[in-house]
Amino acid sequence: MTIPGPVDPTSSAASALRPVSLSGVTFTTGFLGDWQRRNADRSLPYCVGQLETHGALVNLRRVTGEADGGFENMWFADSDVYKTLEAAAWQLGRTPDDAELRTFVDTTGALLAKAQNEDGYLNSYRLLVEPDQRWTKPHWSHELYCAGHLIQAAVAAVRAGVGAEVVTVARRFADLIVERFGGIDGVDGHPEIETALVELYRVTGHEPYLLQAKRFIDLRGRGLLDGDRFGPAYLQDHLPVREADEVTGHVVRQLYLLAGMVDVAVETHDDSLLAAARRLWDDAFGARTYLTGAQGSRHRDEAFGDPYELPPDRAYGETCAAIASFQWNWRMLLATGEPKFADEMERALYNVIAGSTALDGTHFFYANTLHLRTGHDGSHEDAPSDRLPWYSCACCPPNLARLLASLSGYAATTDHGGLQLHLYSAGSVTTAVDGAEVHAEVRTDYPWDGRVVVTVTTAAPITLSLRVPAWATEVSLDGSPAEVDGGYVRVRRDWSAGATVRLDLPMWPRIVRPHPRIDAVRGCVALARGPLVYALEQADLPAGVTLEDVRIDAGAPITPGRLPAVPVTLTTSGAVEQASSGELYPASVELTTRPLELVAIPYFLWGNRTPGPMRVWIPVTTG
Amino acid sequence: MTIPGPVDPTSSAASALRPVSLSGVTFTTGFLGDWQRRNADRSLPYCVGQLETHGALVNLRRVTGEADGGFENMWFADSDVYKTLEAAAWQLGRTPDDAELRTFVDTTGALLAKAQNEDGYLNSYRLLVEPDQRWTKPHWSHELYCAGHLIQAAVAAVRAGVGAEVVTVARRFADLIVERFGGIDGVDGHPEIETALVELYRVTGHEPYLLQAKRFIDLRGRGLLDGDRFGPAYLQDHLPVREADEVTGHVVRQLYLLAGMVDVAVETHDDSLLAAARRLWDDAFGARTYLTGAQGSRHRDEAFGDPYELPPDRAYGETCAAIASFQWNWRMLLATGEPKFADEMERALYNVIAGSTALDGTHFFYANTLHLRTGHDGSHEDAPSDRLPWYSCACCPPNLARLLASLSGYAATTDHGGLQLHLYSAGSVTTAVDGAEVHAEVRTDYPWDGRVVVTVTTAAPITLSLRVPAWATEVSLDGSPAEVDGGYVRVRRDWSAGATVRLDLPMWPRIVRPHPRIDAVRGCVALARGPLVYALEQADLPAGVTLEDVRIDAGAPITPGRLPAVPVTLTTSGAVEQASSGELYPASVELTTRPLELVAIPYFLWGNRTPGPMRVWIPVTTG
Repeated sequence: MTIPGPVDPTSSAASALRPVSLSGVTFTTGFLGDWQRRNADRSLPYCVGQLETHGALVNLRRVTGEADGGFENMWFADSDVYKTLEAAAWQLGRTPDDAELRTFVDTTGALLAKAQNEDGYLNSYRLLVEPDQRWTKPHWSHELYCAGHLIQAAVAAVRAGVGAEVVTVARRFADLIVERFGGIDGVDGHPEIETALVELYRVTGHEPYLLQAKRFIDLRGRGLLDGDRFGPAYLQDHLPVREADEVTGHVVRQLYLLAGMVDVAVETHDDSLLAAARRLWDDAFGARTYLTGAQGSRHRDEAFGDPYELPPDRAYGETCAAIASFQWNWRMLLATGEPKFADEMERALYNVIAGSTALDGTHFFYANTLHLRTGHDGSHEDAPSDRLPWYSCACCPPNLARLLASLSGYAATTDHGGLQLHLYSAGSVTTAVDGAEVHAEVRTDYPWDGRVVVTVTTAAPITLSLRVPAWATEVSLDGSPAEVDGGYVRVRRDWSAGATVRLDLPMWPRIVRPHPRIDAVRGCVALARGPLVYALEQADLPAGVTLEDVRIDAGAPITPGRLPAVPVTLTTSGAVEQASSGELYPASVELTTRPLELVAIPYFLWGNRTPGPMRVWIPVTTG
Repeated sequence: MTIPGPVDPTSSAASALRPVSLSGVTFTTGFLGDWQRRNADRSLPYCVGQLETHGALVNLRRVTGEADGGFENMWFADSDVYKTLEAAAWQLGRTPDDAELRTFVDTTGALLAKAQNEDGYLNSYRLLVEPDQRWTKPHWSHELYCAGHLIQAAVAAVRAGVGAEVVTVARRFADLIVERFGGIDGVDGHPEIETALVELYRVTGHEPYLLQAKRFIDLRGRGLLDGDRFGPAYLQDHLPVREADEVTGHVVRQLYLLAGMVDVAVETHDDSLLAAARRLWDDAFGARTYLTGAQGSRHRDEAFGDPYELPPDRAYGETCAAIASFQWNWRMLLATGEPKFADEMERALYNVIAGSTALDGTHFFYANTLHLRTGHDGSHEDAPSDRLPWYSCACCPPNLARLLASLSGYAATTDHGGLQLHLYSAGSVTTAVDGAEVHAEVRTDYPWDGRVVVTVTTAAPITLSLRVPAWATEVSLDGSPAEVDGGYVRVRRDWSAGATVRLDLPMWPRIVRPHPRIDAVRGCVALARGPLVYALEQADLPAGVTLEDVRIDAGAPITPGRLPAVPVTLTTSGAVEQASSGELYPASVELTTRPLELVAIPYFLWGNRTPGPMRVWIPVTTG
């Protein structure tokens, strides 16, 4: 049985690439496979448990009369249930024998069916609190947002062949939404319904879902939302989507909207919509993205900041935003075939997304800082000093669970004549190209090592395209310098007896510099190797050295090394520079300085030893 | 009639200095006098008008039955009425013939008397909304905060000899508070009542007010507040005040609490309390204050950030926080006699406070940024691109009005044997030192010019102490190098026939550098002259130059000049440096560069011409 992954364009969609299905890609041992296993073994069961502990499921039982008391939790906590359901469905698609997970899907499906109103409506907050206010507060209520996540869970369930009741519930709700919103002008303050309805159209073929998704997108920016405390730009309701030149406001809302825009664009062949998404991509990735792939410079309104406003110590970089960015880039990649979108998937995946979860799989960052300052007050969950077991707004952990459970669905694509590999991890790919079966075995220790060995077997004369990340300036194929064609090394061989190719990506440590308009990190550099951004952590500094006094010699050699639980460290030279005076604004600064050996670890691993200060951007020695 | 200004320690207080009264200091023409006049002519009447337009007074009329409808506005909007009343009282103390203002005070006093409950309680939000919830939500309700501002208005009224009804209302409420909170353990989430009760004690001699103020301070940090969404440190309830080493949380709350601590400390001779305030002063001014005197690095929770977390583009720097800092420093100055506290008053006054109001006197900043970025989205009042006529939370404009109306009360002090001048502006000081009348005439064009000429007439052998700001490294008296003794030039003369001294403070333009731990402005310098911080504004750049590309040659000469409405500009050399590539994180940065003449204006004047980008910290040329 073929199980399509997230985003499966119809055969008539204007999509340059087609995803290899979730079931067609298997990660074995290696970075991504190990991470998926940790998700399956630890994070996902933990999320399922938290739905009980934290009360999100209890709200639904209050609707059915199975539990007492009033609504608890965030008003959109149903979405935590739905995202966990989606994760469970993808996971069951890969490990169908997980009885516990199947029970969770089935009992939750039954609960949802029981909680759903006669007419298809379902929202535990609204049903328990102000039941007569249905659809009346679209800028705030998240009713369609929650419905969207329910639909996404149902789409995963359909594809994985599980959770029939969830699918029934979601379709009934979707039909109600089409009925209700087909005739009136209305949108939701928090996008999600748009992409969900397109995906539901993809699994059902029912065109009204697609048309309603398009309608929600076309109606945006026409003043239908009655504003919010941060104004219409916060809700991306300041301009019609085709007229916007800049990403604005709440990052997750903006990115989910963009995902929906691309979905509608490819299914309706709407070039102006795809062009608008491209324009906003150029803005987001040209001036409003952190080195780790994180987005959102402001805690205040969870927003993209101004252009080049990228403070490392106050990075918001919500985990959900990085996941949303990954999902949007996947859609852009499929639509256009351009590997720069996969580069951004990779940047986010290996840095901000990987870093958001502790190695134990059960502690999470909601906001992903690039600098935990010495003396940081981490007493509040808005900017804790360490990953926390849960959050009062618990959107991120279930979002991680659904991403990781479906991660193999984001690794490879096909087009007429070829197979493209975008994410490298040991495993295999089985798919069809132009009707011919193709099997590829991938051996690699990426991202720790740059060698990717692929053995392809297929009777057809296909082109194997291996993505070359933009940071890989010298690439070799089978030991010889490789030609990079539009971001790929393309190999056309006779694969009929099985043939092996060896891609070598350069893994030498790199210094990365900020664009000079990024004021917040002027005079700093960062260290990177392959797709991994590195960071300095207090745990690796000698006693008595304060991280804020550490400087790097940007011209010194950088050598790889190891530490326990850190496969590749980077060591280089620097200094401790301290101001002789404590004066905050002196006429001149005198420094005492002494040399220091710096050891950097991959950013995503920070905070897994003794908690303490960390920084990605390192000031350069002034001496 | 002598009208004491804000903060008037009793004769038994442990106060190193005694304030010269409000009525004892007159600013004539000159910076402060002109500003006071603008406040009297424009800002204060405007605030009075806004109380009607914006509805704060209507809420009180709803309580009395004179108006219909439910409560509107922020739940603590009564405090806007009280702060405006306080401003009006101080202003009437200086210009008693202002009939309109007197009518405002009298009619508002009558309204308050009518709105007040039998038992003395008064809070329009609470009386109109949830009247049975009195005192039940202390972390949030601002009931004692509003009461504190009512009391402050009454204290001003008593001192100015106006508004008898306001005084009666405030005392009745204060008596209720003492009765209610004397017997139980309770504090308010937003300090203000503490300093207000001490001041009420000062005008009434009624000791229970002082004891209750001390009680509120002693009870802080004992878990009496049931928390807030940002945790106990946000409310300064994480530690007893004597145990705290760091300023934390909401800046205005922290600073109002500190003002109350000093008031209680001097009246009760509590050295441990003053020592605690000193410790927090060292922390606040050693690591958490902007160059402009602004405080509060975070919009999210209006909070002091971590040490050295001072992003110029995301400075919150609430106007009320700067006023609170000014008021706290005044108390520290009186308690200790140390002029460093007056230096911080001056820094805040001439930069952040002066900059918060437009030259028209009727547009205001709530948050006071040090960098308005090119491309800034100023569509929301949280960080507008220009001063706004009013705010949904309107705490700042009335706070400015009361500060300016009472500003002459913060200029000079006496001690046994002497007169100290702290704020320089043309005008006169009339007071008594050791019982002998002293009159001083001040001629100066400070802060535009560094010459301060003081003519003193008194029969007694007093010491005239002239504060020397820390930035003034070479000072002359009557044309000869002056000895600076503990931050003052001290002059002891025979003043009996009137004698004139001439202080010259060095007004050469200065380069200011940031402490190297302030990451956000690494590689930048600022320009200053006298107490004024300077800024670059887009309006002074050639067409086509983006402010973010402007660099300064930190070694070039800086020359003063003039522009229309800018008495002293600073001109120096710099460059336009542009990255050749738009890449956000390149391996290396190539720059094109061309020379540019820079013209800087005083920070406080920014945004009074064509609105546009502005920056205080200027990156240094890399060439």
